[in-house]
Amino acid sequence: MNRREKIYKEALALFNKHGYDNTSTSKIAEALHISKAGLYHYISSKQHLLFLIHEDYMKKHFIPILEGAEKFSDPEKRITYFIQNYATLLSQDASARVLIHETRRLEPRYRKEIKRVWRRAFHLIRDSLTEMQASKKGKKLNSAFSAFAVIGMVSWTFYWFDYARKGAGKELSETFSEIFLRGFLKGSD
Amino acid sequence: MNRREKIYKEALALFNKHGYDNTSTSKIAEALHISKAGLYHYISSKQHLLFLIHEDYMKKHFIPILEGAEKFSDPEKRITYFIQNYATLLSQDASARVLIHETRRLEPRYRKEIKRVWRRAFHLIRDSLTEMQASKKGKKLNSAFSAFAVIGMVSWTFYWFDYARKGAGKELSETFSEIFLRGFLKGSD
Repeated sequence: MNRREKIYKEALALFNKHGYDNTSTSKIAEALHISKAGLYHYISSKQHLLFLIHEDYMKKHFIPILEGAEKFSDPEKRITYFIQNYATLLSQDASARVLIHETRRLEPRYRKEIKRVWRRAFHLIRDSLTEMQASKKGKKLNSAFSAFAVIGMVSWTFYWFDYARKGAGKELSETFSEIFLRGFLKGSD
Repeated sequence: MNRREKIYKEALALFNKHGYDNTSTSKIAEALHISKAGLYHYISSKQHLLFLIHEDYMKKHFIPILEGAEKFSDPEKRITYFIQNYATLLSQDASARVLIHETRRLEPRYRKEIKRVWRRAFHLIRDSLTEMQASKKGKKLNSAFSAFAVIGMVSWTFYWFDYARKGAGKELSETFSEIFLRGFLKGSD
């Protein structure tokens, strides 16, 4: 792990533990055993650091889920893959709580970058749903609202999941994909 | 509307518009044309005000949904009522965005009060689901995870809903109840 990655890892751990507001850049530098000037060699502000961590987290954990899902030509498999892997990610790591929560604090240009990734996820799901509708397998529901139903059902996990029970991730991801897919598909159970 | 209610209404409008952090008690007093001392006659701190508003909002808008749902003896109707009314509330008013988001800032004793209401909602849904399972209508899914699937799917609305399109609330609430119920119930569509 290079210096930059160590900074992201330590800062994210501190944000997760104490919250974004209660974690100063001085405390981050201290935990890394570097000077504050040394830390500012890598970042321009605490908010910039929050963005860099979020961007890095998405590149490592969230975008690979989208890429994995995109490989399936069957839209049902694409959505199942997305739901199960995103739910598993959320059940293994509470970072989404602080990252999603604090997104609105970011400068517009940073927020735009995060939103771009979410738009890609939204399109992946909505387009899969409209494909399922075109082949008469999916119900004639509003595909945008249905796509947000998927994203919301899974994302909300960070509000309530007990991270002491990480072993429950598999059951969680199967519950979500079963409910959503059987709810959206016509006459199957 | 009495003075106290006017304070809650104006402060919530300012929180919704500018965010909690960017709204000082001075600005709230100014908008109400009262002195800061006059405002502090009703509240002990800005955080206390946030709690009072949240508590008032739940009493007026959220608890009546739980009470309405509890009147149905049929668990399927109970859940449908909850989903449709909660989704409608979220589609008409963006206040949940700031209230839910800022809950974690509240002192533990205040947060406990908010959580108590959510626990009631959770139990209402989970118990309805286990009833549906007992009568063999519901699938054998984890009822707690399924209850959080409902809450998450609907609550997430405040993250993405376009409040310029309030007319879409009916379609939104029907989409959510259709997906969830048909996903949870056995062999129906």
